[in-house]
Amino acid sequence: YLEKDAARGNDTFVTFDEILKLAQDHEVDFILLGGDLFHENKPSRKTLYTCLELMRKYCMGDRPVQFEILSDQSVNFGFSKFPWVNYQDGNLNISTPVFSIHGNHDDPTGADALCALDILSCAGLLNHFGRSPSVEKIDISPVLLQKGKSKMALYGLGSIPDERLYRMFVNKQVTMLRPKEDGDSWFNLFVLHQNRSKHGATNYIPEQFLDDFIDLVIWGHEHECKISPTRNEQQLFYVSQPGSSVVTSLSPGEAVKKHVGLLRIKGKKMNLQKIPLQTVRPFYIEDIILADHPDIFNPDNPKVTQAIQAFCMEKVESMLDNSERERLGNPRQPEKPLIRLRVDYSGGFEPFSVVRFSQKYMDRVANPKDIIHFFRHREQKEKNEDEMNFGKLVCKPASEGTTLRVEDLVKQYFQTAEKKVQLSLLTERGMGEAVQEFVDKEEKDAIEELVKFQLEKTQRFLKERHIDGEEAKIDEEVCMDFLLLFEITVGKWERERHWISPQLPNNMKKWGSASIVSGCQLVLLIFPIKAFRRARSNITDES
Amino acid sequence: YLEKDAARGNDTFVTFDEILKLAQDHEVDFILLGGDLFHENKPSRKTLYTCLELMRKYCMGDRPVQFEILSDQSVNFGFSKFPWVNYQDGNLNISTPVFSIHGNHDDPTGADALCALDILSCAGLLNHFGRSPSVEKIDISPVLLQKGKSKMALYGLGSIPDERLYRMFVNKQVTMLRPKEDGDSWFNLFVLHQNRSKHGATNYIPEQFLDDFIDLVIWGHEHECKISPTRNEQQLFYVSQPGSSVVTSLSPGEAVKKHVGLLRIKGKKMNLQKIPLQTVRPFYIEDIILADHPDIFNPDNPKVTQAIQAFCMEKVESMLDNSERERLGNPRQPEKPLIRLRVDYSGGFEPFSVVRFSQKYMDRVANPKDIIHFFRHREQKEKNEDEMNFGKLVCKPASEGTTLRVEDLVKQYFQTAEKKVQLSLLTERGMGEAVQEFVDKEEKDAIEELVKFQLEKTQRFLKERHIDGEEAKIDEEVCMDFLLLFEITVGKWERERHWISPQLPNNMKKWGSASIVSGCQLVLLIFPIKAFRRARSNITDES
Repeated sequence: YLEKDAARGNDTFVTFDEILKLAQDHEVDFILLGGDLFHENKPSRKTLYTCLELMRKYCMGDRPVQFEILSDQSVNFGFSKFPWVNYQDGNLNISTPVFSIHGNHDDPTGADALCALDILSCAGLLNHFGRSPSVEKIDISPVLLQKGKSKMALYGLGSIPDERLYRMFVNKQVTMLRPKEDGDSWFNLFVLHQNRSKHGATNYIPEQFLDDFIDLVIWGHEHECKISPTRNEQQLFYVSQPGSSVVTSLSPGEAVKKHVGLLRIKGKKMNLQKIPLQTVRPFYIEDIILADHPDIFNPDNPKVTQAIQAFCMEKVESMLDNSERERLGNPRQPEKPLIRLRVDYSGGFEPFSVVRFSQKYMDRVANPKDIIHFFRHREQKEKNEDEMNFGKLVCKPASEGTTLRVEDLVKQYFQTAEKKVQLSLLTERGMGEAVQEFVDKEEKDAIEELVKFQLEKTQRFLKERHIDGEEAKIDEEVCMDFLLLFEITVGKWERERHWISPQLPNNMKKWGSASIVSGCQLVLLIFPIKAFRRARSNITDES
Repeated sequence: YLEKDAARGNDTFVTFDEILKLAQDHEVDFILLGGDLFHENKPSRKTLYTCLELMRKYCMGDRPVQFEILSDQSVNFGFSKFPWVNYQDGNLNISTPVFSIHGNHDDPTGADALCALDILSCAGLLNHFGRSPSVEKIDISPVLLQKGKSKMALYGLGSIPDERLYRMFVNKQVTMLRPKEDGDSWFNLFVLHQNRSKHGATNYIPEQFLDDFIDLVIWGHEHECKISPTRNEQQLFYVSQPGSSVVTSLSPGEAVKKHVGLLRIKGKKMNLQKIPLQTVRPFYIEDIILADHPDIFNPDNPKVTQAIQAFCMEKVESMLDNSERERLGNPRQPEKPLIRLRVDYSGGFEPFSVVRFSQKYMDRVANPKDIIHFFRHREQKEKNEDEMNFGKLVCKPASEGTTLRVEDLVKQYFQTAEKKVQLSLLTERGMGEAVQEFVDKEEKDAIEELVKFQLEKTQRFLKERHIDGEEAKIDEEVCMDFLLLFEITVGKWERERHWISPQLPNNMKKWGSASIVSGCQLVLLIFPIKAFRRARSNITDES
């Protein structure tokens, strides 16, 4: 996370090192990851390299692995070119096997449906499990482990878009397979990577959906550390939510102390020991509501802005003091803390210059540029539904709370446009998903592949109808039949320019041309040109 | 190479598999690669995955490695996090160690100076050697191997820009270290990856530069297979040039049959057995000079274009016949051959429509779109020096023959401009190299890093001179002091648009913004805005 950041670039590597060392020191039987080992779908060479290095350093060695696997490994690891658990490979000397499902950040993409974990798995350092071959029906087949008399059924389900998985649960398309023998003697552990908090009616997975025979759920994805197993009254199972290993978004949930868990199982009994992480960069967050202090801040006072600034400075200083006092003494813990002060300035106040304020903390805070976050209570709520969230989405790293996916925006666009526009080739959903892949996963070929797929489908359709024609001709026509171009700038859904074919630079006339310039701030959408021409006169700024 | 090509996408993987299997079947002691295992500096996930898969499959196993290493491995592999040969790592069961230098395609880039080979090396599947810590002086320390009584000193030198290495040789900055004991009993093998053919006065490495104590040079980089060791009269050593494993550019050198070599060493004696590769896609190339056939082609005949087309078709058919006849019978050898017909149409002839011609061979040829290459003899020569080569450079995959590097173009630009423009911060050479990295290696941060570096240098300079000022202020100024923007479209060095700051979209005002849109066809250069403004009125289309 934030690997290019001068201050924070190394944080995730340092803490990953700490975690692996804890596993080694405690001589664990295996490491279980709940997804999102990588923040980027296509991690940089440096990240991949460092990850390989750390895993080779800590997970290989002579300490014998003392559990055995009873299930059919070619089913558990069927997607791998080496479909068996790494510690049983005669060519690898594994001391600590790692099992992981994929998260929403590092899920499989592209024509080959590979993900970053597969590189580690192919290198023999990780066991990637919990992949489903179907997007309509899921049968989760557990990895069955045994050590001494204790037996564990390990169920995994890699990240799936929440709404899709919700639908599948509702339609009873999710089945957890159970071992035939000694059904009751297994400790059943289920690891998944989904929204646990409700981001929308169907945009999360309610705990009630999960089977009652489960003993413990390890819930990935959510960043807040709630690792101690807790139980809802309605459920029989416990849920442990480890949270992220480092602070990503500067939200209150991330200020909760980060832990890993040492889980001990004996028969059906379990015990989870919380181990606080020593190398996590400290993070302090506070809220100030100016209107709550009428005694200090009077909006009519001409010097009120200065007073607010002085007050904020005091707050930051006291947070810095706290940070100093609470240091854990681990030499690898980064010195500069993360500080966030959220200032609600509704009630007639003016925000002060954040730039100047930030400069004072350049050397003492790891996030000088965003220490202060001004907001107005009411405004926040109003914006919540459209532009603001979209801005957050496009500008991924800053995202907090709920986000509207590009997918949804494309849907919106098509819905607005569909009365006027007949789309001959590209479906709304296909396009939405392709653009999503393109933006989130840097999957450069997503749009091209979609177009190819639709093109072939159309050709097949035309052939079946005996509208034969030369294939190449159709190809040419369809190619010319498409266009650009919408620019989406951060926080806005803007149409700044239209280029139509003749004005396009040569290299933009083909599919491969859609590009993201400068991170995620510019998105090109490709639409059928005929449709566009037809619709052109009717297009309003909103559409 | 060409992994996205529907027909040829798998060719390199198939042949890499064949080569590794040959190594296994012949029970070689080790595999030696001469660089460019990868065509792309940042290979795709699929390529990396497939490469890991094949190497894990063929290079791991129980067959014992029978040679030992006598040299200091922490020197030989000093750049690695695991600075020892992989087969001596107790956690890895290596049967066939692979030694490789890096080529010009897969050389180290970026702040961490990592290359794709380092991923394989970190995964324990490859031994990357021949890296030099300095760019001014090179001491090549050999890997010293011994098997029975035979001893080999293995010298490696990863790719370095030819002109720089040439200069270093001339200035006697390249030293090959020799073992102190038994100097004469070692078999000295040197592997390098440089231009062997003369692409310019100093743009290659003459064989005379190399030390006479060498017994055999393995010369990478050049694509033509000349694997049988040959000896220049002036030299004492032999040179073996393995060539590329598959056909890349459609030039005559690539039509030479591809081989790998099985090298046997005993004491100072050597024997190299050529092994023809069975899975390489067949490639046939022929030249037609229309003016050489006045009996058949009369430029005044109104039907001459049809006659030419018919003639070309005959030629292609006969090449297809050859291909059919000469098939090697290996089921993994791709069926459709590569066909190239170069037609010199000087002498008043007109080229026919290549598109229509291509369509006839869609199902029978792997490269239907570029079967025919029309050229005019004289034109070819004239263009050789400027635009044409530049076009080839930008559009890398199609490059044949010599190429002018972006580096040189930037140099040219600065030379033309320097009388008018005073560059305060960026040097011509630094900028040239950064742009080169940016284009060739997709090293997104190259330009940003250069600017950062120069910025810090300038700040240090100003501080030393007691021109103190706020650092942030300098930063701001310098940032605003830069501009874009040149568009280089394929084959042309064009200035189609200038955007100056106010018109720039927000996201283009900062360093990170320089981008390559759609492969390599659009390059943005960032220049100081003040300098640009000063020079603006004088800029001509050529400059």
